[in-house]
Amino acid sequence: MDQRPIGVFDSGVGGLTVVSEIIKSLPNEELIYFGDTARVPYGAKTAETVTKFSRQILRFLLSKDVKSIVIACSTASSNSFETLSGEFGAPMIEVISPGVEDCAHVTRNKIVGVIGTEATIRSGRYDELLKEKIPGVQVHSKACPLFVPLAEEGWTHNTITRMTAEIYLQELLDKEIDSLILGCTHYPLLIDCIRDIVGPVRIINAAESTARKLRAFLANNEMENREHKSKGHRFYVSDNTRKFSRICNLVLRQNYEAIKIDIESL
Amino acid sequence: MDQRPIGVFDSGVGGLTVVSEIIKSLPNEELIYFGDTARVPYGAKTAETVTKFSRQILRFLLSKDVKSIVIACSTASSNSFETLSGEFGAPMIEVISPGVEDCAHVTRNKIVGVIGTEATIRSGRYDELLKEKIPGVQVHSKACPLFVPLAEEGWTHNTITRMTAEIYLQELLDKEIDSLILGCTHYPLLIDCIRDIVGPVRIINAAESTARKLRAFLANNEMENREHKSKGHRFYVSDNTRKFSRICNLVLRQNYEAIKIDIESL
Repeated sequence: MDQRPIGVFDSGVGGLTVVSEIIKSLPNEELIYFGDTARVPYGAKTAETVTKFSRQILRFLLSKDVKSIVIACSTASSNSFETLSGEFGAPMIEVISPGVEDCAHVTRNKIVGVIGTEATIRSGRYDELLKEKIPGVQVHSKACPLFVPLAEEGWTHNTITRMTAEIYLQELLDKEIDSLILGCTHYPLLIDCIRDIVGPVRIINAAESTARKLRAFLANNEMENREHKSKGHRFYVSDNTRKFSRICNLVLRQNYEAIKIDIESL
Repeated sequence: MDQRPIGVFDSGVGGLTVVSEIIKSLPNEELIYFGDTARVPYGAKTAETVTKFSRQILRFLLSKDVKSIVIACSTASSNSFETLSGEFGAPMIEVISPGVEDCAHVTRNKIVGVIGTEATIRSGRYDELLKEKIPGVQVHSKACPLFVPLAEEGWTHNTITRMTAEIYLQELLDKEIDSLILGCTHYPLLIDCIRDIVGPVRIINAAESTARKLRAFLANNEMENREHKSKGHRFYVSDNTRKFSRICNLVLRQNYEAIKIDIESL
């Protein structure tokens, strides 16, 4: 048993969908969240820059004595996890492989769609892992750069978002995918809209998959906090934006006060 | 006469519309551009963070011995210019007041619209300056957070961009504005689409206004470079993204190589 908190980070607010799933799945655990709201978004930046930013954040979370870290940002998971997991001692969970594992259980025709930011898709990490886990799989990937700003504008289900989603998703549907991985932690905010368009295609929400994997990891290593209900979570940001509070309320249905820290000096 | 270069900066690629206007207006001048592509966009961040980032960039440009600096970012101009102009010796031109001055010449009914990023609109800087310059003016402002990602996706004139622009602009048209300031240096990329919607409303392109103001400033202070045609411009970025090359080609119709530097340490 281990009562220390779990660190979770994202480029900004998208990782809150992962926080929400972890809270549902592991109500005893205490979370420390960092959102890099001063430098968000990571999705159109290079691997080198994303890795540099992630390294600063890992240093910050480890200074809080966390027992493990969840990289709740698909861009950082796909571009920086391999480099960074060798540099730090704490166990780290990323958001790519849990979605891939769930997809392996779900697909029947082995034709799989993946949507994410430009940097996630460009990294090729989903292709690589899907091909490892599902022999003979066909992967069709598509970057959807407007999904994050649409979700943050709060246009989660209007005509413009539906038309944008149609443009992005039609070419995947034309390939006859039977499952679709939401490869960006913002995208669960648009899940109703995406579901309307893809119809019977099975949607894999990587935020849910990751929370399940974290629970299994803690159980296998006897690291759960069994004693008491979580005494609350702490939220840190690099810029105190109103957007953070707004999305925090939307996703977690609770108003958390975030503390601003200077991440660039770490 | 002063042969030194002129510094120009923006949060990312939007400032290239200002560069384009300066090149047309002052073909003899040499420009040094910095685009903060690692931390772009600034539009949804706080004044404090935008000022901190801008200060680092000013230090960098001044190290290049520039004779003046153009803050080609509306968010930095409206949130940080007043603070920073007192801190550094070099003459600085921002992009807010030139558009306001042009608007004063154009409006007949004194009902003026302003569109920009969340941070620019929230700063209230346009309101303040318009009220100073145009007694009795009515100002109607609207943040348009999706315009930057739409322009960067290259969707400058499709159905989705037109529908989005209709949603954002209708409430300004309802107020019977007779002129509209494009208060973000990205927005000239969407000017055809915006023009279709606003019809007879006069559009003020702050990038054009700023280039004219810079020319007048250099002439009044005998600081133009009269001797030779510019020997070329230099571009620096904080992250080497493909987006920078793509928009650079689109706006300047030329392929410039950008040099990456570490801005956070300045």
